[in-house]
Amino acid sequence: MKIDGSNIDNFIRGAAFLGTGGGGDPYVGKLMLKQVLNDGYDITVLDPAEFPDEALAVNILTMGAPTVINEKLPSGDANLRALQQMEKQLGRKVDAVMPIEAGGINATIPLIVGALAKLPIIDADGMGRAFPELQMTTFNVAGLTSSPNIIADDKNSIVSVEAETNIAAERFCRDACVRMGGAGQMACYPLSGKDIRQHAIHNTISMAVSIGEIIETARQQRDDVFEKLIQFFTSPSVGRHAEILFDGKVIDVLRETKGGFSIGTVKLDSLSDQSQLSVKFQNEYLLAQKDTQVIAMVPDLICILDLETAEPITTENLRYGQRVKVIGISSPESMKSAEALAVFGPEGFNLDVEYMPLSTR
Amino acid sequence: MKIDGSNIDNFIRGAAFLGTGGGGDPYVGKLMLKQVLNDGYDITVLDPAEFPDEALAVNILTMGAPTVINEKLPSGDANLRALQQMEKQLGRKVDAVMPIEAGGINATIPLIVGALAKLPIIDADGMGRAFPELQMTTFNVAGLTSSPNIIADDKNSIVSVEAETNIAAERFCRDACVRMGGAGQMACYPLSGKDIRQHAIHNTISMAVSIGEIIETARQQRDDVFEKLIQFFTSPSVGRHAEILFDGKVIDVLRETKGGFSIGTVKLDSLSDQSQLSVKFQNEYLLAQKDTQVIAMVPDLICILDLETAEPITTENLRYGQRVKVIGISSPESMKSAEALAVFGPEGFNLDVEYMPLSTR
Repeated sequence: MKIDGSNIDNFIRGAAFLGTGGGGDPYVGKLMLKQVLNDGYDITVLDPAEFPDEALAVNILTMGAPTVINEKLPSGDANLRALQQMEKQLGRKVDAVMPIEAGGINATIPLIVGALAKLPIIDADGMGRAFPELQMTTFNVAGLTSSPNIIADDKNSIVSVEAETNIAAERFCRDACVRMGGAGQMACYPLSGKDIRQHAIHNTISMAVSIGEIIETARQQRDDVFEKLIQFFTSPSVGRHAEILFDGKVIDVLRETKGGFSIGTVKLDSLSDQSQLSVKFQNEYLLAQKDTQVIAMVPDLICILDLETAEPITTENLRYGQRVKVIGISSPESMKSAEALAVFGPEGFNLDVEYMPLSTR
Repeated sequence: MKIDGSNIDNFIRGAAFLGTGGGGDPYVGKLMLKQVLNDGYDITVLDPAEFPDEALAVNILTMGAPTVINEKLPSGDANLRALQQMEKQLGRKVDAVMPIEAGGINATIPLIVGALAKLPIIDADGMGRAFPELQMTTFNVAGLTSSPNIIADDKNSIVSVEAETNIAAERFCRDACVRMGGAGQMACYPLSGKDIRQHAIHNTISMAVSIGEIIETARQQRDDVFEKLIQFFTSPSVGRHAEILFDGKVIDVLRETKGGFSIGTVKLDSLSDQSQLSVKFQNEYLLAQKDTQVIAMVPDLICILDLETAEPITTENLRYGQRVKVIGISSPESMKSAEALAVFGPEGFNLDVEYMPLSTR
């Protein structure tokens, strides 16, 4: 598959959807991607099934709070330097790049870096969505190391971290990211084709394009966008649970940039009754509570969309008065094992609730 | 020159003297060094004049607050891993190691690492004393880079930093050091023989041994140790200014471990009149003020010694009631250029005073 002028808008919209509030302003990602296409670069997305067992792909991302990333646009240059440093430290050429997460700007950056480095981008990621921390991947759950973790900035600083645990690597890299001004460009998780086939969430770049197409087509045909989205996710080929969690109006946004993250809570009043919904976030939406009852939580996806246009709303674009729909989508079964929940379930975020799958509440 | 059972005590005492309060408890360094000698390793100190132009030496140190280093003893293993990582990143073998500073545990660690790695230790350093930060070296003043800076801990974490400025490298490494629990084992400033000959402070390991010998001999012969020390420093071959700044009793110690440093002020009452001396420190003693008048400051050396034994007292060993002599010794002329003072003069420490050489006040 190619990402080009024909599907870029849909890809960006779908990536924002899978970003579940995190990953920065999709508009910024779109501008960056269009620039690369205008410069004549080619964006080739490769199905993981076609990537040889022994070939090597490296995960490419921007680390940092979306509030900062939107002000400090990554040019791709620092990521390229991180990628070159990775090759130097591994002592071999990299055969492909891939997104660590399927959401937001971090779904876009690997496409840009792949284009600039003339490498294919693997159609898979380590979350099937976005999470805020480096160790919150299916790769980590499978025991694969993120090391070496390379983080670079636009002042020619480059920090390389090797650590026994991926959570230790996250802490060292986050410190460097904060020191870099709140955003850093990374290459990490060097993975073999075999590892990717066994442990990645597959075809999430194509899923982003599909989600974008569904929203666009439904708008054009004046269908109910939300119904179409739910049909897509619950179709046998995707096989998720999906439902509208809440229709509401934003009445409060608490948000701070802290420790390299964008952290806060958004509160919504119902449009139809007296109920309220509050959604906690750390870059991404983590936990939705309706009045006193928790109704959705990580690793399931909580997406907040504009009530009229179904455009995904990221945490830093939340504003008082917005009318929104909150959608919940279950994550893949492989992301709900006890080991996986310890990494990116409520426990992984120090949320004091027991995980309950979206479909069973 | 060899460091062995015959001179180890003098070396350690002299290194504590040149540590000007920083660099950790000399007793700890002595135990570490004795262990290495007991294990049969050889400690060979090489005059920089004998080190070939194109040969490569790497600076070895422990980064961190002395208060932490005394609790988390470096074993040498993490430094060895840092050295190996340095060789990997440079793509060549290292021919020697050297101390970045001539004071405290950081004068000792390179001896241990050199012994374990079977490499000679260059008899030179980048300060002729101890300073708390990585960029505070004559190498930096000469425009040499500290990169790559490798910092390792005993949990197998290893962080490598390349930065355009050495102060940026210091900041990234300090973050990693704090994350490592307040102490980390480093290899940095890979230098050619030519660079060392041109820009290092020479023969500072031998100077430490000489200082220790002077103190020991004077004690045995019941001479005035302080007079003998001043004779040594002001002799034509050393060529420094040296003087007793104050005889006093410790009446207050303010000290906190902050940002990876041990920071504070010690206050002394005079033993002969109503005057008071306060000495500010950041790991090392930085600035001595007698009543309202500043009487000594970095880069000149401020040493606090026990009044009876002339044993150097490090900042973390300061205690209420100690009777001490404070000695000031001018630093080498090469460390007092405008460029040098910007790096490790009062300006480099954000001290709001103009540099005035010790000899001219």
